[in-house]
Amino acid sequence: MKKNSLSEFQLIERFLSRFPEADSTLIVPPGDDCAVFRSERSDPILVTTDLLIEDVHFTMDSIRPRELGIKSMAVNLSDIAAMGAEARYAFLSMGFRKAESLDVLDGVMSGIREMCNRYAVYLAGGDTTLSRKHFVINICIIGFAPAGRFLTRSGAQPGDVIQISGPLGGSAAALSLILKKKNPRDFSELARAHFTPEPRLATGQALNRLHGVHSMIDISDGLIQDLGHICEMSRTGAHIYAERIPLFPDASNICDGDMRQVYSWALAGGEDYELCWTVSPDMEDIALDAARNAGAPNPVTIGTVTDGSDLSIFKNGKAWLPDRTGWDHFKT
Amino acid sequence: MKKNSLSEFQLIERFLSRFPEADSTLIVPPGDDCAVFRSERSDPILVTTDLLIEDVHFTMDSIRPRELGIKSMAVNLSDIAAMGAEARYAFLSMGFRKAESLDVLDGVMSGIREMCNRYAVYLAGGDTTLSRKHFVINICIIGFAPAGRFLTRSGAQPGDVIQISGPLGGSAAALSLILKKKNPRDFSELARAHFTPEPRLATGQALNRLHGVHSMIDISDGLIQDLGHICEMSRTGAHIYAERIPLFPDASNICDGDMRQVYSWALAGGEDYELCWTVSPDMEDIALDAARNAGAPNPVTIGTVTDGSDLSIFKNGKAWLPDRTGWDHFKT
Repeated sequence: MKKNSLSEFQLIERFLSRFPEADSTLIVPPGDDCAVFRSERSDPILVTTDLLIEDVHFTMDSIRPRELGIKSMAVNLSDIAAMGAEARYAFLSMGFRKAESLDVLDGVMSGIREMCNRYAVYLAGGDTTLSRKHFVINICIIGFAPAGRFLTRSGAQPGDVIQISGPLGGSAAALSLILKKKNPRDFSELARAHFTPEPRLATGQALNRLHGVHSMIDISDGLIQDLGHICEMSRTGAHIYAERIPLFPDASNICDGDMRQVYSWALAGGEDYELCWTVSPDMEDIALDAARNAGAPNPVTIGTVTDGSDLSIFKNGKAWLPDRTGWDHFKT
Repeated sequence: MKKNSLSEFQLIERFLSRFPEADSTLIVPPGDDCAVFRSERSDPILVTTDLLIEDVHFTMDSIRPRELGIKSMAVNLSDIAAMGAEARYAFLSMGFRKAESLDVLDGVMSGIREMCNRYAVYLAGGDTTLSRKHFVINICIIGFAPAGRFLTRSGAQPGDVIQISGPLGGSAAALSLILKKKNPRDFSELARAHFTPEPRLATGQALNRLHGVHSMIDISDGLIQDLGHICEMSRTGAHIYAERIPLFPDASNICDGDMRQVYSWALAGGEDYELCWTVSPDMEDIALDAARNAGAPNPVTIGTVTDGSDLSIFKNGKAWLPDRTGWDHFKT
């Protein structure tokens, strides 16, 4: 491993090679005080930002550098996906130790580059700096709402069906292995869900184009909490039928026969980055088709929006009370 | 000091009170997956981001929490000022220890709020999370270029005069006191320059409206390095007459008679956040007037853009060779 002995400007030059080229909306590329862009046809512009800190969101002895780059991009891109928009620009702030090896830095950048190339995102700026102890990555993504359309959390209507794009609980199951000092890489589907989640950009865009899709969110804090945000902002309630949620086969294999644990991961585990949306019932099958055709791994209907204010979970006809409802860094 | 025992959502609610109200360009306020805005009249949109990490950019035993909030905003707003634009939205990512006192958090937020109110910036989103050891703040600011106009680093023309908005070297002088375990607060002008720098937004906007101003940058890494960026991107050289640079009287008082040190702080110290611009010579006095009327504390002409490629510094007619040329976290 080579020790990093490059200057800030040498590092930035090294980092920026082989990224996608900017399109014509970028007027001033990186290298000035600000990046400057123009939106096409005055389309609405979306902004999201997420901060990942070593030993809080990840540990260097479980995640690989390339995966850290992928995941840092994925958690942000997932917020753009959740509104049905297109990601366009990324701004990367990164703080790392003076003695950080170039292997680690190149690895992180290769993951970020992979995501930028896969989703046609241009790295338009950022900040590279030292950190005393922990690796820090903040990414800010700017996206455009195609044809002026986007989906929010607040449009759900009583009677809508609730759908999700794929299986839940894989990331939480992998985390449970890490916390037990077991190797999640023995279970490749769980490891993939945890280390390299896939933002559902094409699925979000397809649903945004459909008539009858009323609200959408990405499942980052756990289904109960995230669907709860839709209910709160739409002033509705919801019924979920837990047995309809697709699960990871490997989650059942590692739960020591405790299927309640598997459902807890699926309902409240968080970091799944699948999409959850509500759609009028006459469009139920069309929405599932559209999601599947746009790459959603296993889109299904899991419940109904109600005119109450409670989020109720049923499993095989019986009420199911969760042990925990989601993820809060400050309480758990 | 109360220990922080609030949840993430309670903290966010507490943090967001008494901030400016959003204007009509913000279509989706904080609380959804992304903030969504629309630019007025398709004006170009500017983005800048800066990451500040405890024990690298600041230490909690020298900076006060409110000052940390002010400085975090100032370093970003200064990049918007350097292009002559208006700051509009801020996105704040903050990581802090679980046991961080509410006094510290409220203090940081009060400084951020002060800057948002002073410059009509709306806090449109962000991310609040735990950090294991060091306080981390990343701010991303989005601004609009009024009437489609903005200034870059690349427009300087040979024959332009080089001007700056105020005295240089105060922040570096204060830092030298901190590094010597002395109290910079005994010298209020130096302390202000270091802990609560003022971004020159109105000055930048006034210069952006003037005919004949060809390039601009803010002095964050030291005059030599930042003016060097203008020269490099404009393919010009520059002559600086160091004796014309306004200094801080207190810098001379703490230099133990070593005036070369004072000039070194002014030329290469960094973190001054004054503006440096180039303007055609027939507009020299008009530009100084415009800057002064827009709040620049001491605008002066300090040199000339040349058609060479070297940046040469003269002091009272003699060549002056700097000990160091600027700030690089990875080399100094």
